[in-house]
Amino acid sequence: MTGKKKNIEVCFSPALFPGFRNPEAIAVIVDILRATSAIVTAFENGVDRIIPVGTLEEAKAFKEKGFMVAAERDGLVRDFADFGNSPYNFTRERIAGKQIVYSTTNGTKAIHVAKDCNQVLIGAYLNFTSLKDWIIKQQRDVIFLCAGWKNKFNLEDTLFAGAMGGELISSGEFETICDSTKAAIDLYGQARNDMMKYIDKVAQRTRLRKNKLDDVIAYCHTFDLTRVIPILRNNHLEALETSI
Amino acid sequence: MTGKKKNIEVCFSPALFPGFRNPEAIAVIVDILRATSAIVTAFENGVDRIIPVGTLEEAKAFKEKGFMVAAERDGLVRDFADFGNSPYNFTRERIAGKQIVYSTTNGTKAIHVAKDCNQVLIGAYLNFTSLKDWIIKQQRDVIFLCAGWKNKFNLEDTLFAGAMGGELISSGEFETICDSTKAAIDLYGQARNDMMKYIDKVAQRTRLRKNKLDDVIAYCHTFDLTRVIPILRNNHLEALETSI
Repeated sequence: MTGKKKNIEVCFSPALFPGFRNPEAIAVIVDILRATSAIVTAFENGVDRIIPVGTLEEAKAFKEKGFMVAAERDGLVRDFADFGNSPYNFTRERIAGKQIVYSTTNGTKAIHVAKDCNQVLIGAYLNFTSLKDWIIKQQRDVIFLCAGWKNKFNLEDTLFAGAMGGELISSGEFETICDSTKAAIDLYGQARNDMMKYIDKVAQRTRLRKNKLDDVIAYCHTFDLTRVIPILRNNHLEALETSI
Repeated sequence: MTGKKKNIEVCFSPALFPGFRNPEAIAVIVDILRATSAIVTAFENGVDRIIPVGTLEEAKAFKEKGFMVAAERDGLVRDFADFGNSPYNFTRERIAGKQIVYSTTNGTKAIHVAKDCNQVLIGAYLNFTSLKDWIIKQQRDVIFLCAGWKNKFNLEDTLFAGAMGGELISSGEFETICDSTKAAIDLYGQARNDMMKYIDKVAQRTRLRKNKLDDVIAYCHTFDLTRVIPILRNNHLEALETSI
């Protein structure tokens, strides 16, 4: 490939996204613990569509219309929902061929914030290489939108953005002038040799442990369990054809 | 000292500050390149008061009333202003005993965002140890508000927050559960052995170089040139009595 290198940016919070106005860019939504890891798992297990909704009210309205609903807040399943946010809930038996409505504390909000970008993809370690290869082929700027925690910075999403940012720069097709990207790459450089030890100090690790939900942490940091890439089309997520 | 440890948080952008609601906390404003370094320099050189204003319109109105005004945007002095944002402008000959109105791209906005905190202080490497000692004595939570760049994350303010965060934790009086603070401490850990080399990659370094304003970078990363601590009182900054 030739031509000018494309730009990488990392946005640490949905609240900062208005400052990253670039409608020509691809947006990659990152919510490693656990929304984007769960979404990638769902498509690997054959879900047909996921409808991401921002508010619990919307999720409840879909439930009343007969949809299967996954909904949580602060890591806990809501009582009207069929199940919550753990990737382990999205089993093939439960979801293959189905449509699911999904609402989480941070991740689904981030999807909506980015919806005016050229494309909106779902990123996780689970589909890392597949997503990286696809991004390189597009020859477009890319913005990693970290879902964070209630609009605050979080480390686990940042590390993923750093891992991906480093690989894209190594490809020779991308560059960055963005301090967030440089910070993410440096933090991943510190964490990569013992991710589980590093992740042990992040705030979300503590929250998940408190609710006995920390069984997914190693799973959510596993590279390349699938080639599937969820993409936003007309307010729902589906699997990119090339990725199935 | 005894009792429960106080909490450290780092806020990477004025736009994220509403999520850090803690009116009992001390806020430390950080804009290393160059607003808070310039403000600390001004008080070391005997300025009486600095009135930080957010908009250029306000700065202009003060100028028309006869005030001495320092104002810049994007690193460039505004034509109506007496001088701009370089710490080197704030010489004793020019400012001793005077009141100055000050408006910058990021730093003065951050001061206004934090004004409902218990105390609002101005932090820089130039007054590092003095500020650290004072914070430890207060026995209060502390939030480092990084001015960033147009509401985006920047590395140089983050490194300062990491340097200070690490020292406060080492004092035994502070702890943190904040991912931003942990990231800042880890980034400072990478940068500290060769700060000038690390700073060479930050975006603001490039902006300053472009405008031939990068002569201040080493100065703004020099520890403890003064004991003075600027503090916000009734919409102006003055020197804390204990710090003079």
